[in-house]
Order: sequence, then structure tokens, then C-alpha cells
Amino acid sequence: MEFSFLKPLIKEAKTKIVFLVMDGIGGLPRDEDNKTELEAASTPNLDALASEGICGLQIPVRSGITPGSGPGHLGVFGYDPVQYQVGRGVLAANGINFDLQHGDVAARGNFCSIDSEDNVTDRRAGRISTELNQQLCKLLQEKVNIPGVEVFIRTVKEHRFLIVFRGKDLSGAIHDTDPQELGVKPLRPMATKSEADRTVGIVDQFLTQAHDILKDHHPANMVLLRGFSQKPSWPHMDECFGLKSAAIAAYPMYRGVAKLIGMNVLETGETINDEFTTLENHWDEYDFFYIHIKKTDSYGEDGNFEKKKSVIEEVDAFIPRLRALHPDVIVVTGDHSTPSKMAMHSWHPVPVLLWSERCRRDNVKTFGERACITGGLGPRFPAVDLMTLALANAKRLEKFGA
Amino acid sequence: MEFSFLKPLIKEAKTKIVFLVMDGIGGLPRDEDNKTELEAASTPNLDALASEGICGLQIPVRSGITPGSGPGHLGVFGYDPVQYQVGRGVLAANGINFDLQHGDVAARGNFCSIDSEDNVTDRRAGRISTELNQQLCKLLQEKVNIPGVEVFIRTVKEHRFLIVFRGKDLSGAIHDTDPQELGVKPLRPMATKSEADRTVGIVDQFLTQAHDILKDHHPANMVLLRGFSQKPSWPHMDECFGLKSAAIAAYPMYRGVAKLIGMNVLETGETINDEFTTLENHWDEYDFFYIHIKKTDSYGEDGNFEKKKSVIEEVDAFIPRLRALHPDVIVVTGDHSTPSKMAMHSWHPVPVLLWSERCRRDNVKTFGERACITGGLGPRFPAVDLMTLALANAKRLEKFGA
Repeated sequence: MEFSFLKPLIKEAKTKIVFLVMDGIGGLPRDEDNKTELEAASTPNLDALASEGICGLQIPVRSGITPGSGPGHLGVFGYDPVQYQVGRGVLAANGINFDLQHGDVAARGNFCSIDSEDNVTDRRAGRISTELNQQLCKLLQEKVNIPGVEVFIRTVKEHRFLIVFRGKDLSGAIHDTDPQELGVKPLRPMATKSEADRTVGIVDQFLTQAHDILKDHHPANMVLLRGFSQKPSWPHMDECFGLKSAAIAAYPMYRGVAKLIGMNVLETGETINDEFTTLENHWDEYDFFYIHIKKTDSYGEDGNFEKKKSVIEEVDAFIPRLRALHPDVIVVTGDHSTPSKMAMHSWHPVPVLLWSERCRRDNVKTFGERACITGGLGPRFPAVDLMTLALANAKRLEKFGA
Repeated sequence: MEFSFLKPLIKEAKTKIVFLVMDGIGGLPRDEDNKTELEAASTPNLDALASEGICGLQIPVRSGITPGSGPGHLGVFGYDPVQYQVGRGVLAANGINFDLQHGDVAARGNFCSIDSEDNVTDRRAGRISTELNQQLCKLLQEKVNIPGVEVFIRTVKEHRFLIVFRGKDLSGAIHDTDPQELGVKPLRPMATKSEADRTVGIVDQFLTQAHDILKDHHPANMVLLRGFSQKPSWPHMDECFGLKSAAIAAYPMYRGVAKLIGMNVLETGETINDEFTTLENHWDEYDFFYIHIKKTDSYGEDGNFEKKKSVIEEVDAFIPRLRALHPDVIVVTGDHSTPSKMAMHSWHPVPVLLWSERCRRDNVKTFGERACITGGLGPRFPAVDLMTLALANAKRLEKFGA
């Protein structure tokens, strides 16, 4: 959706919209009963929303494209992910409230394990504890020294950290050093544009020093860097959609995405219950709420069908608490599919339901991949169109033209 | 559809295409039987067309966008309404055959009712008669006097009139004065671009004079102006599609839209029967006919489910007369939805059927919103694609590429 076209149509209303994003919700059927995680889950409350609402399957980026978490979310929030691209580094910085300056280059780091020949044996260093991560980040922060450049190393969670380079004329146009496979060496940093040549040299110095500093800390004896990037200036949700918006997400990464488009990030706890309590406590303060459920994706990535199914059932039980707040529009979807059969993000369209008093109900009675094919939103609904549809259902759009 | 891409593919043929546009045809289910106006109506002839044709739901502008009549029609005729924007003033001028010059600023006026404190009590002055409208327009035309500017005030219908300002360096970049709600004063005219500052002063003078001239004419004791605009230059139907086209519409507004894209507007009467008689009388003269049915929308806007349903049934009875002419392609759709439950235009997709000997039939057997979800055109077909599909079915398009 073109924001400039939409802008004159935005009008004020006292209505409230909730986007419940179950990360990686879409799946693939398991062999034993030909059901996906969502189809196998017992979800009476989501099914009721589906029956009273309009359903479909949405495509977060483009047909056949597997979205990362950033693009997947941006699509769902109405920002075309092809137009609005940002590196994981910036997202990570936002997610942990690191005060990224314009010009800084940020990257997402993973502690990883390498063998005596420097080949990667575990890209996540056995998912070390956050505590160990903190010790290692402190160690790196103390010992790394690159003349003329300030380096910030900050813990994110488990094996994940943030690294920020601050200095003159830096560029984020650098390839990942994560080889995305085992048994090979970490990649050397490479410039994707010549303007980044000097920054590549700086990153290279850092990697050499890190290799030395971490050598006795197996399993976390090396780092991989991804998503080199600089802070973008994007239009905010209030400008684009006239919405005072709040994000409720336990994980830093998702708070980061939300901040980039100007959402207010609410303090919340680790559990789904914490998130819904936060929603209830702030209900009067905002027009739009984004609630993020992480574990559907985590268990999908672990290939754990049963646990992913259980998380879906757990979320289903919170729907009555959501409905008790009387939102005007509820959207339930994901930022992408993460079939536990594949144990990774995938390109498969994502189940979506929109509930409001004013939607035109279709004949879908259950919230599942195959049921949604026949829904009124169709089997390949562009995710970027969700927000305008939600605004329309919330009576927040004027008629276009006379 | 990009016209430049299409143009080399256009070929001559002796085939005929009819677009039957039932204004505001789409609806929402009523509570008693969960049926929309179209689903509740008995439509054996439309159902037969649906059974022999291909069905779906189309989106006139964009997902979630509620189309005004102009954009809704343009979309159906293959002109992207976001690209081809025009104000209601120009449409109104076209609709009553007012010879708008390039540089004129036209606006649609409503006579309205205001109370002693100038707050609007009825935005349509109780829908006064066309006769009273004519008297009041004459009065305004005689008394309004703005130095250096020619002002034309013309009756459209009921409470609607056209006003045209003619002079040097005028601009149509002015906000509506219609507040779109009751109990508040009409809005002062405001420039949307600084180039319109002088024109705003002229409009302001007119409004001050009109307020004085009309003060003793309650319920029509003030005016609201909308859709300030100037004449655009758009490609015509014959250039874009190679079609000699005719519009059959009882209401001026719709004749106006048709003229903007170069259709020949045929004289016709007020009734559906008049319109079909006009079609029959001119059958040999054109390749493409647009027939407009107004009352489906009018009753929808009045919130009158039963009457809207009756008009649909009335139109259904004319289908045999249409088919007796042996058109090659019939498209039945609307320019937008007007659910009587909402009593206004809405964003909901619009039922559409395309009938031809050469279409690929789907399994839809009845013409209704939910039946169309499963049709071959899908639940969210872009309206702008209808015209090329009709041309293809009319054997009017060459193969693309070798």
C-alpha cells in the first residue's frame, strides 16, 4: 500500500486494533495424521474467531520468499519488506535499547564453536547461557582495541550479541561472516559496495582479535557476524496510519522491529501470561497493539511438532482474555511459517484471520492452513494489505474519491 | 493494467461486450438468515449466467479502501483509480453536460440545512425536490457577484448542484467544506496547496454571499461544497482498448465518469426498462456498453435491505432481454459494496461474473458474495484486470510475444 495515497484517507476513531502475531505459526502436515501443528492443535477460541471472522493465507514478502523475522513483521504491519530493508544488526540494537547513532554500523553476533582448524562445529555454541554471554562480551569489550574506532559489544540473549562500530565514514555494506553451514571456516568480511572497503578492514581486525581473545573459551570460542547495517529513517505508524501503537514482545529482536516504525515498546515479562497482562494494563492508552508470541517459532525451528502445537493451544486459552477487552478488530497471524518438519523458516503462506463486527464472514469454521484456503481473504493475500483492511474495519478510513 | 503494454495487442473484432454495473451491489448478511441482499434475492437469470460463466469478488481500488463512485467505476473500466484521480466537481460538470474549460474550478454542491447558530442539521436539506433546487440555483446565479470571476451554478438533481468558477490562475487544490457530520458548522474552505490561496478567497466570498441569499430558505438555507477540481486529460477507451463505447446511465454523475474516458453517453430515461430499451436501440452502433443501475446503491445507503434486494430481482428479470441481443461477453458487477447494514459505501469486495462462450467455467452456481469466494476469478480480483479479461473473451487481443 502506498502511504501517500492512504494518508488523506486516515481519520480519527476511538476503535482499537490488536495484531496477535504467533511467530512461525504456519506449518506442514506430519505424516501420522496429515495435520499441521495448527490443524492438530485444539483451538476452540481461535476457531470461534475464524467462524465469526474472515480467513485466508497471507504472503509476508513475495511468493516463494522465506521471510526473516524483520521482513515478516514489516509486511504484516503494512510496510513492504522489499522497500523497507534493514539489517539484523540495527534490529538487534533497537531490541536491547542500544542508542544507535546515525552513521554507526551494527551487526548481530553469534558466539559459535570452531575446531582446531577453525571450521565451525556449532553456529550457536550450544546456545550458551545468557550469563556466560555477558562474561564473554565483557571480556571482548575490555580487550578489543581498534585505533580510531569505538566498538560496543553487548549481550542480547543466549548465544546472541550486538556489535556496533562507531567512527568516521563507516558503511554497513558488508556480507555476513556466518557461513550458514558446518565444517567450514567463518567467512571473511567482504564489501558489497566499495564504500565499505575501509570498514571491512576494521571488521577484519575485530575478528582477528576476537579469535585470539576467545580461543580458550570453547564452546564459545569464535563469533559469526550477520546483518551489518545502519539506522534507517522510516515513516512511523502514527504518520502512516494515524495509530498510537504499542508493542508487547518478550524478545528484544521484535521490540527492535516495532521501534523502527515508531511503536511504543511496553515493558513486559517472559511469559504469554505476562504479555496479556501488559495488554490489559495498557488497554486504554493505545489504538493499536502488537502482541508477539515467540515460542511457536522456537519449537518449529527445533523441529518439535508437539511443543509447537502446545504453544498454539496455550495461546488459544488467552483469546477469551483478549476478547473481554472488546477490541474492534483482531488479526491473528504470523510473520512467516516455521514448519517443524523443516525446522526452519519457510516461504509457505501464513494463516491469517481478521475478526470485526463489520467484516464479511466467509464459510471458514476452523483456523488452520487448509481451512483458510477457502476463506474470503484468499489463499495468497499480500500481508501489506492487512493493515488497511484492519483500519477499514476499525472505521479509520474515509471513502476514497467521490 | 499498463495501457502502453496492452496497446500493441489490441485487435479489431465484431464482438460486443456489455458491462452491467449494479451500483453498490455487494452487501453484508442480515441477522435473520445470514444472507446478503444478493444472496437473499431470487435471481434465476443471474444464477444461470454465473453457472455458465466465471465468478469471483473484485476490489475496485485497493484492499480495505472504500471507493467513491468515480474511483469504483474507473477501476471496473480498467483505469487504476489511484493513478486516475478526479474530483467530484469535474464529474458533476460532465454529468450535466456543462462545458467545462481547462482552468475552470468545479465543485459539487449540496443544499443543506443549518440552525440559528450555523450548525449543520441536515447535510442534504431533506433531499429537496429538483424543482426547488432549480429555483434556488437561479436565485444564487442572479445574486452572487464576485469581481473578476465568472460563477456558474447549475442544478444536478434533488439537493445536488454544480458550481464552476472561471477566471485567471484558479486552482482546485481546496478541501471540502462539507464537515461530513451534523451539529457542527460547515468547514471554511482551506487550500491544500499554496497555489490555491487566491481561489480560497473567491470561494469564501461565494459562501458568505450564499449564506446571506439563502437565509430564509430553510431547509435549503446553506450549501456545502465538495470535490473542488479541474478537468484532467485522460486516455480514452478507444485509444486504450480499441472499443467504440457507449454509456447508458440515468444519473448525471455516472455519465460524467463515462465521458472522462471518452465513452459516448446515450440519452436514456429514468427506469431500468428505459436503459435496456436504449441498449436495444443502439445495439448495432457500439462495441462496448456500460449500463448503470443506481437504485441498488440508493437503497443500500438508505439501509433498506428489502428494497435493495427487490432492485436486484428487478434487474435479474432484464437479463433475458440482454441475452437475446447475443453479446459476446457479459460482465455483471458493481463499483463498490453498499451493505444496507452499514447504510454507506464499504470496502468489501464486489461480486463479479464474466460470461462468454470462451470463459473457463468454474463451479459457482449462484451469484452471491460467499458463492463467489470459490470462483475462478478468486476472492480478491483486481477490478482493473476486468477489462483485459473481457477483451480476451471478446477475441480482441493478440497473442503477446512470439
